Amino acid sequence: MPSFIQRLTTAVQTKRNGVLVGLDPRYESLPPALQTAAAGDYAGRAAAFGTFCRSVIDVVAPLVPIVKPQAAFFEELGPAGMVVLCDVIQYARTRGLLVLVDGKRNDIGTTGAAYAAGYLGIDGQSPWGADSMTVNPYMGSDSLEPFVQRSVETGSGIFVLVKTSNPGGAQFQDLVCDGKPLYRHVADYVEQLALQTIDTETSNGGAYGAVGAVVGATYPAQLAELRAAMPHTWFLVPGYGAQGGAAADVAPAFDANGLGAVVNNSRGIIFAHARKEYAKFGAARWQEAVEAATRQMMSELPPVRG
Amino acid sequence: MPSFIQRLTTAVQTKRNGVLVGLDPRYESLPPALQTAAAGDYAGRAAAFGTFCRSVIDVVAPLVPIVKPQAAFFEELGPAGMVVLCDVIQYARTRGLLVLVDGKRNDIGTTGAAYAAGYLGIDGQSPWGADSMTVNPYMGSDSLEPFVQRSVETGSGIFVLVKTSNPGGAQFQDLVCDGKPLYRHVADYVEQLALQTIDTETSNGGAYGAVGAVVGATYPAQLAELRAAMPHTWFLVPGYGAQGGAAADVAPAFDANGLGAVVNNSRGIIFAHARKEYAKFGAARWQEAVEAATRQMMSELPPVRG
Repeated sequence: MPSFIQRLTTAVQTKRNGVLVGLDPRYESLPPALQTAAAGDYAGRAAAFGTFCRSVIDVVAPLVPIVKPQAAFFEELGPAGMVVLCDVIQYARTRGLLVLVDGKRNDIGTTGAAYAAGYLGIDGQSPWGADSMTVNPYMGSDSLEPFVQRSVETGSGIFVLVKTSNPGGAQFQDLVCDGKPLYRHVADYVEQLALQTIDTETSNGGAYGAVGAVVGATYPAQLAELRAAMPHTWFLVPGYGAQGGAAADVAPAFDANGLGAVVNNSRGIIFAHARKEYAKFGAARWQEAVEAATRQMMSELPPVRG
Repeated sequence: MPSFIQRLTTAVQTKRNGVLVGLDPRYESLPPALQTAAAGDYAGRAAAFGTFCRSVIDVVAPLVPIVKPQAAFFEELGPAGMVVLCDVIQYARTRGLLVLVDGKRNDIGTTGAAYAAGYLGIDGQSPWGADSMTVNPYMGSDSLEPFVQRSVETGSGIFVLVKTSNPGGAQFQDLVCDGKPLYRHVADYVEQLALQTIDTETSNGGAYGAVGAVVGATYPAQLAELRAAMPHTWFLVPGYGAQGGAAADVAPAFDANGLGAVVNNSRGIIFAHARKEYAKFGAARWQEAVEAATRQMMSELPPVRG
């Protein structure tokens, strides 16, 4: 079985870009034609999320390597939303996309292992069937290890929160402990895990391990600092677009071959019909706005070589 | 609508104990009669979880104030598990128990708000319908605020991870930053949030706010330190029983009235039939073992006054 990083590298090289489309189906932002379910009609809203996400996937599958469903928006609708989350993951995979579930899960020992077993593993290895997931590091090494082990066993990957893109992220992550900020302590540990999980059986994938890091685009200096400190860690970079990050801000996340990072854009792509520059499509042609916004972002990221 | 802390206080005073029964349905540990589903039969295993949890709830509902389903074990079974998680929450509520969903969720802004809207709010206010949930603080203040706001609006509560009970918890939580460990930085912020969310309309509930803290029982000195530092913060104390914490270790978590804390026990109660001291019941009478273990723990915690 190819490792996650091998599959991610191949996908980025094939699509020639590192755009990660975030599937964040906020009901109030859906194209009006899909907003037919009443408040409290969880099943109806979940069905709308399914239709919407599959339609986004149809547009972006030929263009980008990977999509990221945000678990929270599906979970907001209760079990009906979770059923649709699973459907969306499977649909994306059948369309040839890699899937990163953004759930920021974490717990200790066998409880963490339960999350990992639930989400990580494609082709029937797990019920949710994702290629990778985001993980929160607050509980420390023995809460991360079950996710790392599962990643190696199933050819999956994780992205650990290191430096997040929200203003409040600095409150704890930037506290200086023993001479360096907390996020650097987390970063150094994640880099160790990445080093330990490099896929040595294949040259494709280069020097990256199965453990990645979430590093926000709203802090370009920290992005450059962490790129240098974490040479074996693939980055998931949120904060592009709606959160204020621009192409120049994310450039330091990539290596010389345009690899080593995927940059997330959620609202800026999936709700592009609401953006001034794509108003010409109108709400009915919202999928064309999605395609135009995706192509625009693809052109803004550093070119992929190799 | 009564606040969460008012309802929790009343429940602890009525049941005369602060035992929190953790619903962690590990398939391999279920009573043998319930282990009839094959590996990979997620729906069958989820059904067994439902039967098991409802049977535990039947035993403990007259005895304890609150139960805590661990989301990870349900999530491990995919959407089928999540459907049963929701059923178990509802069943516990119909049996008069408060429900704390242990999912350790967190995310920024409107994404965090989606988790909060999904889980927090009883009697039709939310699809999962829980009284409270656990939350991870790594992403900082603007990731916690949506949960706090939702708690106040719906008479719910949250418990923020401060000092966890696992060995690896020290890796980041004990790092000393600006003269105090990270967990104290988190603790001081959580105490502020607790102070801001005190239910002033009722005397029942005393001086506690809607924002609580998770503080492990495996570190009694830190438990005493944090009790003193966080006088308005209700504690959820994990680590009792299977994780090594004993009655003397958790005593510092309580105030003089035996309030201010609930102590979790999962495996030690729900899988009591596997404990040497309850072997006399045999696997078929596993519910009697659950009752005996629950009553044993009730007798070990400090008495409740008032």
